[in-house]
Amino acid sequence: MHSFLTEAQQSRQREFREFVARHVAPFAAEWDRTEKIPEATVRLIANAGYLGSTLPLEFDGKDWDTVTFGLLNEAFGRASVALTDLLTVQAMVSMSLLKWGSKEQKSRWLPRLARGEIIGAFALTEPDSGSDLHSLQTRFTEAGAGAYRLNGTKTWISYGQTADLFLVIGYTGSQPLACLVPRESLGVQVKPISGMLGYRTAGIARITFTDVAIPDDDVLGKPGVALNYIVPVGLQYGRISTACSALGLLRGCLEESTARATARKLRTGTVGDLGMIHSMLARMGTDLHAAALLCLAACRATEERLPEAFTKTLMAKYFCSRAAVRAADDAVQIWGAAGCHEDAPVARYYRDAKLLEILEGTTQIHEELLGRTFVQAAPKQAN
Amino acid sequence: MHSFLTEAQQSRQREFREFVARHVAPFAAEWDRTEKIPEATVRLIANAGYLGSTLPLEFDGKDWDTVTFGLLNEAFGRASVALTDLLTVQAMVSMSLLKWGSKEQKSRWLPRLARGEIIGAFALTEPDSGSDLHSLQTRFTEAGAGAYRLNGTKTWISYGQTADLFLVIGYTGSQPLACLVPRESLGVQVKPISGMLGYRTAGIARITFTDVAIPDDDVLGKPGVALNYIVPVGLQYGRISTACSALGLLRGCLEESTARATARKLRTGTVGDLGMIHSMLARMGTDLHAAALLCLAACRATEERLPEAFTKTLMAKYFCSRAAVRAADDAVQIWGAAGCHEDAPVARYYRDAKLLEILEGTTQIHEELLGRTFVQAAPKQAN
Amino acid sequence: MHSFLTEAQQSRQREFREFVARHVAPFAAEWDRTEKIPEATVRLIANAGYLGSTLPLEFDGKDWDTVTFGLLNEAFGRASVALTDLLTVQAMVSMSLLKWGSKEQKSRWLPRLARGEIIGAFALTEPDSGSDLHSLQTRFTEAGAGAYRLNGTKTWISYGQTADLFLVIGYTGSQPLACLVPRESLGVQVKPISGMLGYRTAGIARITFTDVAIPDDDVLGKPGVALNYIVPVGLQYGRISTACSALGLLRGCLEESTARATARKLRTGTVGDLGMIHSMLARMGTDLHAAALLCLAACRATEERLPEAFTKTLMAKYFCSRAAVRAADDAVQIWGAAGCHEDAPVARYYRDAKLLEILEGTTQIHEELLGRTFVQAAPKQAN
Amino acid sequence: MHSFLTEAQQSRQREFREFVARHVAPFAAEWDRTEKIPEATVRLIANAGYLGSTLPLEFDGKDWDTVTFGLLNEAFGRASVALTDLLTVQAMVSMSLLKWGSKEQKSRWLPRLARGEIIGAFALTEPDSGSDLHSLQTRFTEAGAGAYRLNGTKTWISYGQTADLFLVIGYTGSQPLACLVPRESLGVQVKPISGMLGYRTAGIARITFTDVAIPDDDVLGKPGVALNYIVPVGLQYGRISTACSALGLLRGCLEESTARATARKLRTGTVGDLGMIHSMLARMGTDLHAAALLCLAACRATEERLPEAFTKTLMAKYFCSRAAVRAADDAVQIWGAAGCHEDAPVARYYRDAKLLEILEGTTQIHEELLGRTFVQAAPKQAN
Repeated sequence: MHSFLTEAQQSRQREFREFVARHVAPFAAEWDRTEKIPEATVRLIANAGYLGSTLPLEFDGKDWDTVTFGLLNEAFGRASVALTDLLTVQAMVSMSLLKWGSKEQKSRWLPRLARGEIIGAFALTEPDSGSDLHSLQTRFTEAGAGAYRLNGTKTWISYGQTADLFLVIGYTGSQPLACLVPRESLGVQVKPISGMLGYRTAGIARITFTDVAIPDDDVLGKPGVALNYIVPVGLQYGRISTACSALGLLRGCLEESTARATARKLRTGTVGDLGMIHSMLARMGTDLHAAALLCLAACRATEERLPEAFTKTLMAKYFCSRAAVRAADDAVQIWGAAGCHEDAPVARYYRDAKLLEILEGTTQIHEELLGRTFVQAAPKQAN
Repeated sequence: MHSFLTEAQQSRQREFREFVARHVAPFAAEWDRTEKIPEATVRLIANAGYLGSTLPLEFDGKDWDTVTFGLLNEAFGRASVALTDLLTVQAMVSMSLLKWGSKEQKSRWLPRLARGEIIGAFALTEPDSGSDLHSLQTRFTEAGAGAYRLNGTKTWISYGQTADLFLVIGYTGSQPLACLVPRESLGVQVKPISGMLGYRTAGIARITFTDVAIPDDDVLGKPGVALNYIVPVGLQYGRISTACSALGLLRGCLEESTARATARKLRTGTVGDLGMIHSMLARMGTDLHAAALLCLAACRATEERLPEAFTKTLMAKYFCSRAAVRAADDAVQIWGAAGCHEDAPVARYYRDAKLLEILEGTTQIHEELLGRTFVQAAPKQAN
Repeated sequence: MHSFLTEAQQSRQREFREFVARHVAPFAAEWDRTEKIPEATVRLIANAGYLGSTLPLEFDGKDWDTVTFGLLNEAFGRASVALTDLLTVQAMVSMSLLKWGSKEQKSRWLPRLARGEIIGAFALTEPDSGSDLHSLQTRFTEAGAGAYRLNGTKTWISYGQTADLFLVIGYTGSQPLACLVPRESLGVQVKPISGMLGYRTAGIARITFTDVAIPDDDVLGKPGVALNYIVPVGLQYGRISTACSALGLLRGCLEESTARATARKLRTGTVGDLGMIHSMLARMGTDLHAAALLCLAACRATEERLPEAFTKTLMAKYFCSRAAVRAADDAVQIWGAAGCHEDAPVARYYRDAKLLEILEGTTQIHEELLGRTFVQAAPKQAN
Repeated sequence: MHSFLTEAQQSRQREFREFVARHVAPFAAEWDRTEKIPEATVRLIANAGYLGSTLPLEFDGKDWDTVTFGLLNEAFGRASVALTDLLTVQAMVSMSLLKWGSKEQKSRWLPRLARGEIIGAFALTEPDSGSDLHSLQTRFTEAGAGAYRLNGTKTWISYGQTADLFLVIGYTGSQPLACLVPRESLGVQVKPISGMLGYRTAGIARITFTDVAIPDDDVLGKPGVALNYIVPVGLQYGRISTACSALGLLRGCLEESTARATARKLRTGTVGDLGMIHSMLARMGTDLHAAALLCLAACRATEERLPEAFTKTLMAKYFCSRAAVRAADDAVQIWGAAGCHEDAPVARYYRDAKLLEILEGTTQIHEELLGRTFVQAAPKQAN
């Protein structure tokens, strides 16, 4: 990978890895057990500027390029994909706002998001909508003078438990609409969801909005543009972040598997000398390298605003999440019974990895989108 | 399947399924959460005779054939593979004892095991031995007059937390030896292992034996026979039980997946109308049918004491556990985000299924054993 | 398997295997190379009664049960799935006729089919229809007094090159219709298709029917019943035959792989001692056992006319053909470079196996049908 | 990919694709059928400089960088991996010679190789050696004054039928030795191998050397260095070439699959609208993108002489060849029956792809090498 990164990117990558090794890795298992991340850790992350990494300097962001953003997410994903999700949602809200917010909205919210003074959450998914954005039930009723009244329920919202600002997507009449909703608004009710299979520290919540008043200042863009313009920006960053986070988990699987394989003695040599284990590791390590390159390609295309950035990001998310699930599956086998206990990092990887295939669009949605894309690009056949 | 079962077997199968539907299925999720099975449930199971199902009538067993034993395990596995493991360990200890115990040992222990008054546990695995039985560290030191002194540590012992009687395998000098060790013996220390990835209600424990006195009455067979004669009997029943338990979980995956697919509405039809879902379900359902037949074949061969019973049981365990992992993986995808929460049965299946690939010999051990078997049966090649 | 077969079935199985070892196996590679099967071989097969194995005695058939028919196909598939296809098509035509033919049609055609004096071919697939039977373009135009005039083109017709009698499916108006068409009829043109990837000796042809006169004697059943009643009978036998043929090829892969693995010396031992090879063989051998049981279950259900016979046969065909492709893939790897040359049986298996996934309904059609079936059988979900 | 290529590389890529579209693609099927490539085509390739693409200008080579060499091989692989193998073997011999040949050997042979006046072949594999280089049976007997006498048999030698110069690896005593052997030398016997599963136009041959006199001028390097120094250079280029060739075939699979899927009409839309097909295409297209990146990374690392070049090339070859086999498998399914006939490009891809997993080291050898590499790089585990 190094030969594809600039000096600055490599230097940042070292910094990210050190930060994670010191402040995240030693505690990730405990956070998972308690389903909580200490406020102090969030402060550390905020102070390092990681919650505004892609925002411009003028909004107190770091103005890092997308490749660097990917490296940041990978480094965090190595230790905790659940914590990485904090970077995900913050970027989804911030970048949507940067691209589609009014001047006033940007100056009001972005610096606080960049500095991590507030946490944003992307309130899109609903109990009955799944990945089908056209069947959202959340409604914005016109309340005069550009204001609205909001009713609806959002669920599986990462960091919904602690977020200060929700970016809520719904409909006004037949027009999709996106609004910013501060958590303290009257009529916002947050219900924590505990007992997740994975991502147990991601503060997942169900949010109910009951007659919440939305002043016109908090409406993002015009009615009609939410699904085709605003949501795609959020999902693009959500997918990049999730793909890179999966890449980190994949790296964790390889490192923990090889460490275990060499440490585990057999009568003749170690587990790492077995042919069957070589097969597993060969696939895992090659997938890791391919995943890293796909993430890099997606990040670069996004940075360069290339038209293929969307497809490349879909491919990165699709490949990395599947590879992470396979790798965690094999990693548990390499660890054996010990790998089935929460003291082993691979047990957590096994649970967390599955959610990588669900978040920001399931594997099946990705297959549908990619399949259609490739069909549309088909060369004409003579017969 | 029905055309392969006798009337009596079919009738028992109905009984088992009713028992499980009433006494197990509604509570399995809760037990998993609390890592505990109520004593009352164990009583119900014991009273139904399920803890002595394969023992002869003379020892208060039910004397059911191996196919019926398989159906029992499948029925329980449908709701909780972790609880099924109670049937597994009881059979492993009981059947080893039935086959290799002295007349006195049998009349002393078997009726109480059959009636479920006591629970047995198979204390084979050690922290550093994994699946390699020849590197066991547990030692029986001769103490005169056929008695021994036992020192060693066993781990990942299912129902070790509550078992009354341990069948312990170790070495005396270079000879493998098996002994019965009542839990109340001086020097037996049981340490519960909580926080498992799956099988959270299987009462898994680490057992330490410190200078435990073993009277000659509790020595099973002669020194030297443990690994080649006694352990294989236990593992045979352990694998049958685990294979059928995996079959039950696989059935659970199909039923919960199709139920969800038909209930989940899309704008056009349901999830169950999608081509991608058909592919997943076709594989899942076909694997289920194949798994059921492999279990049946293994049970029948065991019942008929055919030489191929060993290989057929390896195949059943290997296939069913792998198929269960695949099915649980797909089932979570079909459920989507909801499938990643513990309220969904499939989230628990996903965690439990992985242990099916580890218990009673990992998938890799099975591949090694089966691979060697097929190579040995190879036809001679001319060139 | 033996414990599931009657004495008579086992005895027949031995006979079939001996026949194949003597008359088929030594020549299969050569036939593949020349894309031809000697007439003398077809005579031997006919004389053994194998072309009328499932027909009643009264029509000069053998009246063997469906399990025995499956064993016959498996034995032939072990040496040549392409030759087995002769049994396939003969059964498809014969059994459709037995079930839906008039008394006169049966007494006229069945004895000659049973004795192998004539070969039948099932003319269903069309250049533009694929597996979608509702888009057939072949037309029967009414010609008065129950007679028709036939126009259309059928393709990929196994043994179309040599068949004496075609069972042709098309439409008259909007009604599907099936007719018998002797090859010597005026307007029948047979164009051999050479250069197939596999099944090179199956005499595959494209048949064009131009204004062929169909007397009312040759119309099978009434207009309207062809697709829902007649074709399903043919496809049922076609799928059983193909599934069992795939099972035979799978057995070939295991036998040739293990033979090679033990014969091929390395510096330390043989290829058969390698862990990676054990993994491949474990899967191959377990798939083989599962495939055999699925075929048996499908045959028994068909024999007993159980409602689940259709689904079980789909599962057998789907599983066996996929397993055969995987096995052939691994078998070539185990053989290495030698396995990529036509002198190695596995090179032919590799080419032939792929067609097993296409014939009598592609894997995707099977997934579609099975997926729908499982969805329809879904338990109701509470929420 | 474009954003990773220089202008010059992109421009060459366009040139290569045009050359292949004009001179290779239209004839590849016919060459496959006849197992022959016209001399005129080889001339065209030679005149374009493609047989000396990586050799320095001073030897009449093109001096193209390794990435450009990869693009060349990919472009050819798109139409014919068998023809691409000509580029493979020429580079294997030329680059070994460039790196390890004496000044005289280089000036004598390299310009003729670069200009394509002679074709080289890499004579390494033996009937009984497979991938185990330490068991080669070929012997160089000392004949005084640095000369040798050569005896041995090499097999599966690509372009052995037409090669003018063999690079032969064997042993002198216990020391591995590499020599150049002109085809016209006394005692060289070339036996063409026809009837391959794939790579039918690659002129594969078995070469027997009987008492061939090797003057000291034709000895490459000193005795002892052949296996650790010379062969690795050849294999490195062989693997890069094969990986990129597989990448080309993979691209062919995607293009032919999507073209077919859009052209093939169903009652409702086309095959390209089906969910199942989207799943296949999503995997195929994502694998293609990953494969392209892995090839690029391997080529760049080789160009930059990075220590990880060896491992990256192993990963590229391993991933691309496996992905090509999977893609060809799916491509045939998407084409249906038509895909099983040699008129369909995908039927040839299916046969050719399998050899990609065997040539220049089987998939299993790659798993062994990669597995060991990852194990050696394992982080130390605390416990």
